[in-house]
Amino acid sequence: MSHTLAELAGLTATEFTGDGSCVVETVADIATAEAGSIAFISDLKYRKYLSETAASALIISPELQAECHLPAIITAEPRLVYARIANILFPAETYAAGISPHAHIADSATVSATACIEAGAVIADKAVIGDNSYIGACAVIEHHASIGSNTVIHASVTVGHHCSVGDDSILHSGAVLGADGFGFVRDGSHNIKIPQAGAVRVGNDVEIGACTSIDRGALEDTVICDGVKLDNQIQVAHSVHIGANTIISAATAIAGSTRIGENCMIGGCTGIREHIEIADNVMITARTLVTHSITRPGSSYSSSTPMDETASWRKNSARFRQLDKMARRITELEKQLKKLTAASDNAK
Amino acid sequence: MSHTLAELAGLTATEFTGDGSCVVETVADIATAEAGSIAFISDLKYRKYLSETAASALIISPELQAECHLPAIITAEPRLVYARIANILFPAETYAAGISPHAHIADSATVSATACIEAGAVIADKAVIGDNSYIGACAVIEHHASIGSNTVIHASVTVGHHCSVGDDSILHSGAVLGADGFGFVRDGSHNIKIPQAGAVRVGNDVEIGACTSIDRGALEDTVICDGVKLDNQIQVAHSVHIGANTIISAATAIAGSTRIGENCMIGGCTGIREHIEIADNVMITARTLVTHSITRPGSSYSSSTPMDETASWRKNSARFRQLDKMARRITELEKQLKKLTAASDNAK
Amino acid sequence: MSHTLAELAGLTATEFTGDGSCVVETVADIATAEAGSIAFISDLKYRKYLSETAASALIISPELQAECHLPAIITAEPRLVYARIANILFPAETYAAGISPHAHIADSATVSATACIEAGAVIADKAVIGDNSYIGACAVIEHHASIGSNTVIHASVTVGHHCSVGDDSILHSGAVLGADGFGFVRDGSHNIKIPQAGAVRVGNDVEIGACTSIDRGALEDTVICDGVKLDNQIQVAHSVHIGANTIISAATAIAGSTRIGENCMIGGCTGIREHIEIADNVMITARTLVTHSITRPGSSYSSSTPMDETASWRKNSARFRQLDKMARRITELEKQLKKLTAASDNAK
Repeated sequence: MSHTLAELAGLTATEFTGDGSCVVETVADIATAEAGSIAFISDLKYRKYLSETAASALIISPELQAECHLPAIITAEPRLVYARIANILFPAETYAAGISPHAHIADSATVSATACIEAGAVIADKAVIGDNSYIGACAVIEHHASIGSNTVIHASVTVGHHCSVGDDSILHSGAVLGADGFGFVRDGSHNIKIPQAGAVRVGNDVEIGACTSIDRGALEDTVICDGVKLDNQIQVAHSVHIGANTIISAATAIAGSTRIGENCMIGGCTGIREHIEIADNVMITARTLVTHSITRPGSSYSSSTPMDETASWRKNSARFRQLDKMARRITELEKQLKKLTAASDNAK
Repeated sequence: MSHTLAELAGLTATEFTGDGSCVVETVADIATAEAGSIAFISDLKYRKYLSETAASALIISPELQAECHLPAIITAEPRLVYARIANILFPAETYAAGISPHAHIADSATVSATACIEAGAVIADKAVIGDNSYIGACAVIEHHASIGSNTVIHASVTVGHHCSVGDDSILHSGAVLGADGFGFVRDGSHNIKIPQAGAVRVGNDVEIGACTSIDRGALEDTVICDGVKLDNQIQVAHSVHIGANTIISAATAIAGSTRIGENCMIGGCTGIREHIEIADNVMITARTLVTHSITRPGSSYSSSTPMDETASWRKNSARFRQLDKMARRITELEKQLKKLTAASDNAK
Repeated sequence: MSHTLAELAGLTATEFTGDGSCVVETVADIATAEAGSIAFISDLKYRKYLSETAASALIISPELQAECHLPAIITAEPRLVYARIANILFPAETYAAGISPHAHIADSATVSATACIEAGAVIADKAVIGDNSYIGACAVIEHHASIGSNTVIHASVTVGHHCSVGDDSILHSGAVLGADGFGFVRDGSHNIKIPQAGAVRVGNDVEIGACTSIDRGALEDTVICDGVKLDNQIQVAHSVHIGANTIISAATAIAGSTRIGENCMIGGCTGIREHIEIADNVMITARTLVTHSITRPGSSYSSSTPMDETASWRKNSARFRQLDKMARRITELEKQLKKLTAASDNAK
């Protein structure tokens, strides 16, 4: 869906300079852009691309305008306007209203006339599907579950009984909402299951990745607040609470009853222990193991060890098990050296 | 489903003190309990809650009885009785016997008349479903697979051909049993697949989490013994053997042919190498990488590094690659200091 | 499917010694082999098994022939011939051509007459299924997706719209191809979705494990080249490129736009950052966090820390946060000791 630069400026309520009739067909990275594309520069360190890029048009900040000889949108937020233009050029898929004759809808379910239900989808007793929502092939919406409006449930998603998803959300294939939380008490050598009586409540404007699992609460519901974005292969345990607009990257696992604040950024492969509290605006880098609560909003935490060539890593890694001894040897050296220095000073 | 304290004591074969007509509607954590709930105290360090809690009733050990002014069940195992009461108040879902007209059952499959098969489920040739078992929507039981009695296979589970699940087990949505193990031999730059001719055998009273995958054996079956509990997002490779009543937390990956003992507790995000043996009753903390066999029953193992503020972590982490040099510098310092000390002693 | 040793030698174009009429029913590990099996020895350090094994026949390298008293195939590549014989004894499952009456095929889809489509499978508009391919129960092939010839798509796999899979490939249950990549731009506290307009292109002779997710590209397609083997529970983000014949073990996560070379071997639980390049023939050990590009072909990289008993680990791990201070203390000791040594030398 191509547009002229002038049209794109109009649609994004921005100003432009240069030839407004320039045709834009796609967005691109500034370094690899080709003719027909628009790219953005948000950082002065990429200014060299102003002359080098093959893009047909640019999105730049005002301080670059003087140096720019291409047709360009001028904005204080180039990255954001780039995202808006990408959404104009590549609009989200739309779905024709209607229920496939090969979908299985329980008599007591309520499905909006404007919803689209694909073949093989199963909507169970008392489930509710809102206006303009999409239920993909072989997706399962269990009894008493509810899906809001304008929400996309992709193929092969499972939404467990009594769980709810709000409006304008997207659940990707293989995601599982509402499996039982993992709770047991030992009775001798037996593991007695603790009932998982809560549900999962997902807010509006949430995205949940492929093969991500979110367990139902033990007593308190598991809650995913508005605007949260979860990548693929994430595990969210029972009764976890994730605050609004927090973003979590792939393969992260969050243990039971942990509360994560709003606007956090959590890197991939992170592990977070149970019953932990994380403040708002916290940044956690990839592969961190969060073992304690993080109380300071806006702070940044990490763990993990650096990559190295295997031969070198092997030598250094072996020393890890001697770290405490090394520290004690340093302390002993300091003590002895101090004694020797004193003796030497006395001898003068 | 509410009960009086006296009824709950009767149903759990325990004693109680105080007002037996006190009505209990839910279980709760002692710190956040509200009226209508029963909570437990198993540790003397929480005794302050005896006076502070808003719970209507308690489950306590005998040594707390004198201090307790609320109606209470007295038992040597407060946590276990709590679990039993939770199961009374929140009984597991029951399913009406019957096959949905929208399920697909092969003619040669054997499905008990007391089983419940949901819409979209597929039961293939020669598969067997036992009494009172449940097969969720869009679950697939492949040919020659067998499911025991009183077992719950949730929506969108796949049980591969020739695999078996015992009685009283629960498989959560998205779990995959019996995909091929991962085995290849290099032929020049080609990877030749080694056939995966075994199956998966799951015992009784097993629980398998959402999106957990258990591969079929290469030659020997992959075996999950009775009472094992696997959380979500776990990977169990071909020919692994997990001993009875072992509990494994989410996002753990176990490589091929490894044997794990009975009653082990394995923390989340753990990785376990191939062809390893782990003794009984072993505890492994979260995010450990198990690189060698663990032969001592009851031992506890760990790896991972501590979380820190990113700025501080960056400095410390960079030193990891100098660890071997640091150790050598300490040794050199010790040598030189010894020499100097000797010289200084001689000089006296 | 049993064979004589002479038949197996014929089928693998190898030589044999001893009794060619010896019957072989299965392959086995040399250490645990039983009568009726054939095992291989590729390493001289296992030569003791030449006399100790219970296998009925062996596959050995020429230098072991003199010591071998069992019927044996003699070959320079015992492991490879073992794999070939395993494939003869345990041939891959075959599927009868035909479409289940319970599969849901869109009118505009193209399905080869020799393909096998199981009950509950969904083939959407304009999708193409090639000759002799298999689509398992409840698998979903979305609109405009294409599957080549001789490819096996197991039960409950999702292949997203416009994605393609080549010939002779295997996708295991729960795998998800073509979910949206994870890309957002912050607009104040809001996360604006960046459209994911690319697809996933999977080559020939590829294997993709259970519950593995491969996201569609943002602009450039995500590409999995010929011969790549991906284990279970792997995450491949948008616009990643994985070179031919690379093998990746379970639970690895690869972030966006990363390029991995050919013939790499990547251990399980590895994390790989975004926009990284990895050269050909690189080896990465389990649980590594790849934070930088690896430019040298054939190199080997690692991170992770060693497993230890928890009590000892706790002491050593605590020192990790003091590493930078320890390094500075060593430097200070070296300085002071040098001064003291100089003073002592002067005093002589």
